[in-house]
Amino acid sequence: MAARTDPAVEAFTTSIGADYRLHAEDIAGSRAHARMLRAVGLLSAAEQRAIDSGLRSIAAEFESSAFIVEPGDEDIHTAVERRLVELVGEPGRKLHTARSRNDQVATDLRLWCKRRCRELMLAAAALQEALLERAREHRRTILPGYTHLQRAQVVSLAHHLLAYFEMLDRDVGRLADCHRRCDVLPLGSGALASTTLPLDRRRVATELGFAALSANSLDAVGDRDFAVELSGACALCMVHLSRLAEELVLWSSTEFGFAELPDSHATGSSLMPQKKNPDPLELVRGRVGRVVGAQVALLTTLKGLPLAYNRDLQEDKASLFDAVDTTAACLAMAADIVRVVQFDTAAMAAAAADPGLMATDVVDHLVRRGVAFREAHRLVGRAVRAAARRGCALDELTPADWATIDGRAGEAAVVTLFDPARSLARHGLEGGPSPREVGRQLTRARARIAATRKLVTSLAGTHGRAG
Amino acid sequence: MAARTDPAVEAFTTSIGADYRLHAEDIAGSRAHARMLRAVGLLSAAEQRAIDSGLRSIAAEFESSAFIVEPGDEDIHTAVERRLVELVGEPGRKLHTARSRNDQVATDLRLWCKRRCRELMLAAAALQEALLERAREHRRTILPGYTHLQRAQVVSLAHHLLAYFEMLDRDVGRLADCHRRCDVLPLGSGALASTTLPLDRRRVATELGFAALSANSLDAVGDRDFAVELSGACALCMVHLSRLAEELVLWSSTEFGFAELPDSHATGSSLMPQKKNPDPLELVRGRVGRVVGAQVALLTTLKGLPLAYNRDLQEDKASLFDAVDTTAACLAMAADIVRVVQFDTAAMAAAAADPGLMATDVVDHLVRRGVAFREAHRLVGRAVRAAARRGCALDELTPADWATIDGRAGEAAVVTLFDPARSLARHGLEGGPSPREVGRQLTRARARIAATRKLVTSLAGTHGRAG
Amino acid sequence: MAARTDPAVEAFTTSIGADYRLHAEDIAGSRAHARMLRAVGLLSAAEQRAIDSGLRSIAAEFESSAFIVEPGDEDIHTAVERRLVELVGEPGRKLHTARSRNDQVATDLRLWCKRRCRELMLAAAALQEALLERAREHRRTILPGYTHLQRAQVVSLAHHLLAYFEMLDRDVGRLADCHRRCDVLPLGSGALASTTLPLDRRRVATELGFAALSANSLDAVGDRDFAVELSGACALCMVHLSRLAEELVLWSSTEFGFAELPDSHATGSSLMPQKKNPDPLELVRGRVGRVVGAQVALLTTLKGLPLAYNRDLQEDKASLFDAVDTTAACLAMAADIVRVVQFDTAAMAAAAADPGLMATDVVDHLVRRGVAFREAHRLVGRAVRAAARRGCALDELTPADWATIDGRAGEAAVVTLFDPARSLARHGLEGGPSPREVGRQLTRARARIAATRKLVTSLAGTHGRAG
Amino acid sequence: MAARTDPAVEAFTTSIGADYRLHAEDIAGSRAHARMLRAVGLLSAAEQRAIDSGLRSIAAEFESSAFIVEPGDEDIHTAVERRLVELVGEPGRKLHTARSRNDQVATDLRLWCKRRCRELMLAAAALQEALLERAREHRRTILPGYTHLQRAQVVSLAHHLLAYFEMLDRDVGRLADCHRRCDVLPLGSGALASTTLPLDRRRVATELGFAALSANSLDAVGDRDFAVELSGACALCMVHLSRLAEELVLWSSTEFGFAELPDSHATGSSLMPQKKNPDPLELVRGRVGRVVGAQVALLTTLKGLPLAYNRDLQEDKASLFDAVDTTAACLAMAADIVRVVQFDTAAMAAAAADPGLMATDVVDHLVRRGVAFREAHRLVGRAVRAAARRGCALDELTPADWATIDGRAGEAAVVTLFDPARSLARHGLEGGPSPREVGRQLTRARARIAATRKLVTSLAGTHGRAG
Repeated sequence: MAARTDPAVEAFTTSIGADYRLHAEDIAGSRAHARMLRAVGLLSAAEQRAIDSGLRSIAAEFESSAFIVEPGDEDIHTAVERRLVELVGEPGRKLHTARSRNDQVATDLRLWCKRRCRELMLAAAALQEALLERAREHRRTILPGYTHLQRAQVVSLAHHLLAYFEMLDRDVGRLADCHRRCDVLPLGSGALASTTLPLDRRRVATELGFAALSANSLDAVGDRDFAVELSGACALCMVHLSRLAEELVLWSSTEFGFAELPDSHATGSSLMPQKKNPDPLELVRGRVGRVVGAQVALLTTLKGLPLAYNRDLQEDKASLFDAVDTTAACLAMAADIVRVVQFDTAAMAAAAADPGLMATDVVDHLVRRGVAFREAHRLVGRAVRAAARRGCALDELTPADWATIDGRAGEAAVVTLFDPARSLARHGLEGGPSPREVGRQLTRARARIAATRKLVTSLAGTHGRAG
Repeated sequence: MAARTDPAVEAFTTSIGADYRLHAEDIAGSRAHARMLRAVGLLSAAEQRAIDSGLRSIAAEFESSAFIVEPGDEDIHTAVERRLVELVGEPGRKLHTARSRNDQVATDLRLWCKRRCRELMLAAAALQEALLERAREHRRTILPGYTHLQRAQVVSLAHHLLAYFEMLDRDVGRLADCHRRCDVLPLGSGALASTTLPLDRRRVATELGFAALSANSLDAVGDRDFAVELSGACALCMVHLSRLAEELVLWSSTEFGFAELPDSHATGSSLMPQKKNPDPLELVRGRVGRVVGAQVALLTTLKGLPLAYNRDLQEDKASLFDAVDTTAACLAMAADIVRVVQFDTAAMAAAAADPGLMATDVVDHLVRRGVAFREAHRLVGRAVRAAARRGCALDELTPADWATIDGRAGEAAVVTLFDPARSLARHGLEGGPSPREVGRQLTRARARIAATRKLVTSLAGTHGRAG
Repeated sequence: MAARTDPAVEAFTTSIGADYRLHAEDIAGSRAHARMLRAVGLLSAAEQRAIDSGLRSIAAEFESSAFIVEPGDEDIHTAVERRLVELVGEPGRKLHTARSRNDQVATDLRLWCKRRCRELMLAAAALQEALLERAREHRRTILPGYTHLQRAQVVSLAHHLLAYFEMLDRDVGRLADCHRRCDVLPLGSGALASTTLPLDRRRVATELGFAALSANSLDAVGDRDFAVELSGACALCMVHLSRLAEELVLWSSTEFGFAELPDSHATGSSLMPQKKNPDPLELVRGRVGRVVGAQVALLTTLKGLPLAYNRDLQEDKASLFDAVDTTAACLAMAADIVRVVQFDTAAMAAAAADPGLMATDVVDHLVRRGVAFREAHRLVGRAVRAAARRGCALDELTPADWATIDGRAGEAAVVTLFDPARSLARHGLEGGPSPREVGRQLTRARARIAATRKLVTSLAGTHGRAG
Repeated sequence: MAARTDPAVEAFTTSIGADYRLHAEDIAGSRAHARMLRAVGLLSAAEQRAIDSGLRSIAAEFESSAFIVEPGDEDIHTAVERRLVELVGEPGRKLHTARSRNDQVATDLRLWCKRRCRELMLAAAALQEALLERAREHRRTILPGYTHLQRAQVVSLAHHLLAYFEMLDRDVGRLADCHRRCDVLPLGSGALASTTLPLDRRRVATELGFAALSANSLDAVGDRDFAVELSGACALCMVHLSRLAEELVLWSSTEFGFAELPDSHATGSSLMPQKKNPDPLELVRGRVGRVVGAQVALLTTLKGLPLAYNRDLQEDKASLFDAVDTTAACLAMAADIVRVVQFDTAAMAAAAADPGLMATDVVDHLVRRGVAFREAHRLVGRAVRAAARRGCALDELTPADWATIDGRAGEAAVVTLFDPARSLARHGLEGGPSPREVGRQLTRARARIAATRKLVTSLAGTHGRAG
């Protein structure tokens, strides 16, 4: 390579716009690398000290936004090294010893992913906590549970909110698993074949807080599985948030009327003065698109790449960063909204008074009396239609009416089944909506949040400032 | 809506980061809207002149990067209107008459899409021209054509390059169709139900260069089909570029050795001093991911949205802009590379000398002599294996050898079939690789490029500065 | 290739499961190919007659499900040729003359796509017609139009339904454009380099009803753009259906109560006897996923493939067929549902009586009296809040109340603005919801359907039985 | 629900085509459910015995393909129950007691996913073993390692193959994590709100081999995270296989010539008699598309669904089943190919003799002598260009030439660095390609496979026949 790179090519290939934000990870990695080079005798103590001091100055420049990207800086790695040579001279030209940008960027990106995994876990836990707090207030707030968006059976608002708790708990689990697979140091893999120089990879791993060394250098420089896995965990988390958002949008409609956002969390219309719109919820819902798109982008880019490093991999960052940023922002906004949304429990109770919601209780009642389930289902169906024909509600059928439908139902007991609160209390199986069972779930939920926070602390603790 | 919006909600919902770049379209739309308001009597002449002058000043501010976005500017529309009121006072507060941001942003975005469609068409035509120019030099440059990455039959480099011309021609066609469907004015649809004020929508359409008016206001404010269609056209175009890039990467390998990028268009390695890498090609290939991802993002975001406008639609811009920008940049880079890539025609010729490439010519020869195709195919297969067993090339079989294989082949004629140039010349069917036929294709290709440019000029011409 | 293919490899590579359904296209293509071979002298008249008769017999076998796929039949092409040789002997072994499965399958698939494009256009037109019919009944049926799922302004059910008409009209346009790009004959491209035999491609094109010949043989055998484009058109159409389905699911809820499916188009619950669920609508909505997935599958498979044919292309069919079948089925089901869904116009009217829906009319009224739009918007917002504070509806404010808010509004006129039917009538701009304007839209809609049907007839007419 | 379902609606909504294959899981779940119903007193011993016997007969019917699906059977659950009532009468009508199809299908699908997870883990391990076996033969087989498809440094074939081992090891880890999250019993959640009947959920979990009970009934019936996670694990695994396939396709080209498939694993051409194509590899590569598509399909379908069950969820099966089947088949085919592919080690050695591959060794050599890395890199770059100018190879530069370039390199030592085998041996860092280090990696790899198999046995062991 003799001639200069064409400026259009430089502009096309530069990645500093995307990888600028890896500066902290890049500097942490370089400091650890240099310390190790000194330990194995490839840098003198003085050289390492100069490098370390230079890198700390550069870190400070980034912190204070004083760092200036020069036109020739293709990526964050060359920018930092260029500046280091400016600051400390010759020793800076030794920093890249036995290192390639291939293993360097993989290291930076894994450090970044680990940190963001932990942040996402905490953000999910914060949303879980918001759900838990609201659920605690509403163990006895009754509303219809829906299937097919049709009223189905009575549940409580607490039970409903805790369904989202469960989704987020699985998200936390996936993020923790992803963190584990991120926690592998690629540095020392060189461009693709490690190096002939006597590096001490374990020392670097310990200093940067990595749990393991990559086992194969060809794989290590071309591996972006962790980015796919993290964006995939984000995509599924965003699907959960899209469901929550959809539901709160529905509930905010005049027709449902179960919820209202405070003015601080709604927006008006540029044209229609009476409007109050749940915009933040709609954006949470809509942003699932870009995160699913990011997942597709990463998978498509990786498809069919031969070993080892190919420049295509540079495309990982824009998609991954956007997926993680979007998910983090939406988790925070969702938590905010869950905290402030106003529930109209009277509207919920009115909707839950619909006696059709207790039809299944009647089926169960008949089953308890020995009616075969299919027969019981058929009989109650007949009662529902009889009531409809008569223009009355199901709970307005008299014991005599029930007796006409079936002898086994024909007694006072049936007509007592239509109280929503008592129906709720009857549904006390593990996972069910009864206040007692939900109380148990709340206790478990609190413990789960604590466990997540403890795990994050422990993961972060082993990683020092750099990780 | 009485209380202030929460700052976190403001930060979460703002779109100025994405829609800032619509400023020219937004101002053009507002100027046309104001002129129409005057025409129908909703603005006085003086008011309209003040607005127009203010908007022109704001356009100049954007041009010179002097426009300052204020913290409260949620989007480009409010930013422009806020500034207009600062500049011209009361008349500025009349600009939004009978308009909603819903129909305004749809108008802005359609103007933007139309312009970018035309630019993409020209960028595709420029790449087509680069292919055409290189093809003209190489009508008689012989190389193996491949199927399954196995050498198959002789083709010419011109023919090979023109295959990409065809892909791009379909891209141009799709972009032109997309332009047609973008070419519909939504302004006048209001928030969702048009307006009670006596607007003149046709006047606005004419001034902004739209060919038609949207036919249903509920649809018009919630329609982003044109964005999906444009990003879809980009995704397929990027698939084409990924194929071209893949092929040039293969050809740049030592193993193929058919092509070499000049130093200006390759990059070196931070570690390995001997390396010369085709990075821009790899990035073209890798960036297909983000454009496919954008397409998925848009489709996912739109899924299941009820009428009419929902804030989810704000998410259209980040994905669409990225898809279009990426495609435009990759088309330009691909054209650049096609112009400068050095072909090693000797290496191509050496590879094309493989007589196996003419095996199908022998089959055709036998068919011409009346051998049933399946039989001819079997016989030549037998000859291939006989040559392999004997360790000689297919063209080293003697007439006597051929006679042993089958009497109908046993004569001098067969052994004359192995000249690659003559094989090429024999493949003269429409669409085939013979120099004569490729000459015809080149003529047609030139005409296609001219037609595209003419079409773009005509589309742009009717749209004035704004469109 | 001497040895036998491994049975596991055969099972893995076979495509007969997917391409079986191309039998009619395959036979049509072969018949045309054979007739052309006779015309150029590569088959005798007797041979061609034998082949034609054999192929007709095979077609009959497929029609009657009597055709038996043999274990060795890798794909539909070899199955048909194998059977042909069984039926007619030696001439059958000449059918594949100057043809490859590469150009053959591309031809079959384009014939299939053309037919399905036309069918989808008709299916979309049928749904448009169903919408149109229901719209005709409901020009004066008033309901709230929504943005952000909040009640916004008054529209009519006709206007609402016609919004979907417009979406489908764009789908029809995209399908017609796709048909045009499918309408190119690849046969004669051979494996990749055409052939040395003197085929008459135009004759085949005419007979099969193709409008043009492919211009480059390398491109023609590796091109699946038409499949991507068709599946892309399906994906966007499915997004439209998902929006319609979402809305009807919402309307079928007790909370909205605007619509009810007849028992014939709903389903019950295996557990809850009172339930009536809009399952077909939910499936229409849910199936958008598989069609978007098919689009991604095709794009991903094509990414980075070098020229010309690669076996990866075989993967086109499963995704494409599923996308088209799903879309066709959903269009038909949606049309069915639109025809039978029962609208509760009283519920709609009750919802539309909300005077907040007319707030924008008041703004327009003030604007007409010279109040600057921003001021008018602010004033009406103040009125909305005043009414809320007072616990009354907006239309219960007296002229005196209005006078307090602003002198310019303070007169009898304002309080007359709250009649929904009169509000609807006032919104008479092109594209707006007024009954008069919707009448115009209905006329236009009817003409659009007729135009689509005429276009399909004309496209099909030129293609004979085969196309 | 009084009236009959429309036949078109039945055809549109039926899922028996997709869920038929869940029959074993469905019957296992029903048997466990019935035993539990007996334990809690909702079935008599005789009733349970009749049901169990009937279900075993039905299982046998499925095994022998004697089970007949009737027109009214909407799904596998109703088909089995319908048949059970036919076989055992009244007790069969009690089977569905306290159960909904919502919790039933979720249970069936989780059982299926758990089994397939384990099968995929074993299939991945089998491919890992095939890679390991070939790697053991080739610890000293030298070939160029590539970055950007340009020759970079010397590696061994063993090292290269083990890179894929690592990718698969991560796949196994993700599948194991997914299994853990599948291992949760939803049965007992009823339609959405559990039941009022006194079920014993733990008993069912134990019998079916589930590790935990779902904690929230609303979540449990609407949760398909496990399906998304499994298809996501498949998608990434397929990306790995696409990379392996791409590489073997490249290596099978005449240009690379590093590998050849035996005739049993290649296919010929219908037109070109000399061709031998790596079709199974191309199909492995191409099929990544449908699995990525399945992932998108699932995510898109789930987006924005409110709680709890919606019929959209039925769409999970077609995509999930296809993703798993495709991945399982491709893992098996890839293992097969790795076992039989013939490596041309002479061709690899010839390619690896390129002395440019040792340029980085020279840099390291200079670094060891105290030259700053950047300077060493620059000097060797100068040597590379000097050799190029002179038309000689890098290893043909004499000690004197090197002395001219830089004094520190100017000695005999440099010219000894160009032996590929010695270069390989020098790269002995953890993860590097030296035979000694690869020996260590092989030992570790063997242990990893054993660990996977042990894990699968242990997971399966706790689950009895049903799991």
